[in-house]
Amino acid sequence: MSEVKLYFEDLNPGRVFHGGPVTLEADELVDFARQYDPQPFHLTEAGGCASIFGGLVASGWQTAALTMRMFVHSDLKRVANGLIGLQIDKLTFHQPVRPGDTLQSEFDVLNRKRSHSKPGFGVVHTCWRTYNQHGDMVMSLECAIWVATRPSGAADEVSV
Amino acid sequence: MSEVKLYFEDLNPGRVFHGGPVTLEADELVDFARQYDPQPFHLTEAGGCASIFGGLVASGWQTAALTMRMFVHSDLKRVANGLIGLQIDKLTFHQPVRPGDTLQSEFDVLNRKRSHSKPGFGVVHTCWRTYNQHGDMVMSLECAIWVATRPSGAADEVSV
Repeated sequence: MSEVKLYFEDLNPGRVFHGGPVTLEADELVDFARQYDPQPFHLTEAGGCASIFGGLVASGWQTAALTMRMFVHSDLKRVANGLIGLQIDKLTFHQPVRPGDTLQSEFDVLNRKRSHSKPGFGVVHTCWRTYNQHGDMVMSLECAIWVATRPSGAADEVSV
Repeated sequence: MSEVKLYFEDLNPGRVFHGGPVTLEADELVDFARQYDPQPFHLTEAGGCASIFGGLVASGWQTAALTMRMFVHSDLKRVANGLIGLQIDKLTFHQPVRPGDTLQSEFDVLNRKRSHSKPGFGVVHTCWRTYNQHGDMVMSLECAIWVATRPSGAADEVSV
């Protein structure tokens, strides 16, 4: 059974999508750091203890990438043309993510605007917030995504 | 021989650091997508051909993570307390990154400000730009980083 797709018209300001949970284990944390962010506090417990973090912590880029995983696995996966980011702002890391942390995310629709230059598409502004198992926000960002408008004849979302 | 560290005072506005090159092979591109951004246009050539990208393309988060790798391997690795990002803005993907692309980056110091709340530290605003082998800019962002000020007695950079 194919899923009913989401179009620009379905992404009303105030709508919230939920992602996760995902747990970040130490080996995945260190693998990412070796490949993309090989700094001592992302590579070993000893390196972390010698830093301002007081222990091994995840690269912020991995927290962002894990949040993307939750985004792609959330109900937003039904967006008709895929999840295509245009610009990200206010990407902030509020608390370190440590080995064994379990993350969950919320994705809010802030506002949206039809494209004048590209009929059939619009830009939807979203806010992403990622929390750890203690309820502390670890990351947030704002992301503008590119979303197709509903073609005539496409199923309404309410028909799910 | 230990490297002479870089402090807040060394990061003058207008100073430019260079990173790369790194080449992104198809297997690394698909591995990242499977783990963090499993959308059809990041997973297979066929999925890419059916999308607005017209072929397999890297997740933007991987382009950002590869740019972080170049940042950590650039001369900025000498920053005294490591490379700790506070906030990222204007993260924009200008062109898709495709299998086999070779990337290089420039990291400019835009401006800086000493911290009032945390003596001994300052915030340095940087602009990162990543280019492919054709000279096309594929990604840019602005990143505020947290940098220690020079302790009395620390070696001047010019003594390298």
